[in-house]
Amino acid sequence: MKENYKIPQATTKRLPLYYRFIQNFSEAGIERISSKELSEAMQIDSATIRRDFSHFGALGRKGYGYDVQKLLVFFRDVLDDNERMNVAVIGIGNLGHALLKYNFQKNQNMKIVVAFDTNYPLDGKLVNGVPVFHPDVMEEKFEEFHAELPILTVPARSAQMMTDRLVAMDVKGVLNFTPVRLQVPDTFRVHTIDLSIELQTLSYFMRNVGK
Amino acid sequence: MKENYKIPQATTKRLPLYYRFIQNFSEAGIERISSKELSEAMQIDSATIRRDFSHFGALGRKGYGYDVQKLLVFFRDVLDDNERMNVAVIGIGNLGHALLKYNFQKNQNMKIVVAFDTNYPLDGKLVNGVPVFHPDVMEEKFEEFHAELPILTVPARSAQMMTDRLVAMDVKGVLNFTPVRLQVPDTFRVHTIDLSIELQTLSYFMRNVGK
Repeated sequence: MKENYKIPQATTKRLPLYYRFIQNFSEAGIERISSKELSEAMQIDSATIRRDFSHFGALGRKGYGYDVQKLLVFFRDVLDDNERMNVAVIGIGNLGHALLKYNFQKNQNMKIVVAFDTNYPLDGKLVNGVPVFHPDVMEEKFEEFHAELPILTVPARSAQMMTDRLVAMDVKGVLNFTPVRLQVPDTFRVHTIDLSIELQTLSYFMRNVGK
Repeated sequence: MKENYKIPQATTKRLPLYYRFIQNFSEAGIERISSKELSEAMQIDSATIRRDFSHFGALGRKGYGYDVQKLLVFFRDVLDDNERMNVAVIGIGNLGHALLKYNFQKNQNMKIVVAFDTNYPLDGKLVNGVPVFHPDVMEEKFEEFHAELPILTVPARSAQMMTDRLVAMDVKGVLNFTPVRLQVPDTFRVHTIDLSIELQTLSYFMRNVGK
């Protein structure tokens, strides 16, 4: 893992997107690419791309552009994509079920390895090939299945309690699909995806286009 | 609808979140609230809240705080939450199915009214109470069901084509669950939720906590 404490957060958030596009270019057999071409493909302005890339060190050359293979190695290294990410789904309602069926089929490096739901037994039951256990055994099963990345899809009333348990287990973050604003220590990272809020914001922007 | 062209985009994105918290406070019978209390509940720093609220006009008074009912009326007005939002789901795979089952049960102002998928007939078929039609009749059914907000959950290969049709229908935006970077005119708004990218970013932050 490279030292990266100097990379601004806004840049960091774009890393996976850069990585995906560089992968596409590489698979298409493209050897080098300009910030302008990247800008057109990604719809991010080229000044932002050049500024972002400057944080990664001298990866481009004037009049030549960026070497796609070098970028690929760099992003894979930074994002540690060589390691597989073991995802745990907590809460198997509608969304949880959809996640188990989907299970990142297109992504070799991401896999739901275990799931938890109060309607499942302590000794587990397979759903779409994923073992689902009662949350009473969450701590031991997280360890047994080497789960690292939890996705929280429980009812709102259980969200904080399950998060507290994740914090106590020394897990470092969660992808939160509940509408609950989780209370966590500074060392624990929460990413929230709230569909109602996304739609409401989108609707607001749609109604105010061009104003 | 208020004039709001002066509100910065970062503030705009927080509007639905403010609205939800103000609703909670109102339902709890709280009449007034300080920026500090809002800050603690929402985990947004109070300087940001005061700055955001200053864009909405003089809504608070020093030493008194904000009147919850006035805020509620204000946010409802700005977000047009008096109107119901009619959502259309395009693509009924795993995620599309989960969305139809979920259908914003907790949210009276948001409702999936129609859906589209190539595996469904031209004259439609009900799934969880929502009529699902073949996309060949998307244009007429959008109008018939007064759909405004499309959610795109089609396979990646169909994403741009369906978006082009939405643009041609004069729809103003889309919530994009596909990994495709959609090409759209400036007047069309795209919000993308890419689960792989969310997880990869989260994982990156988790591995770099405290560094």
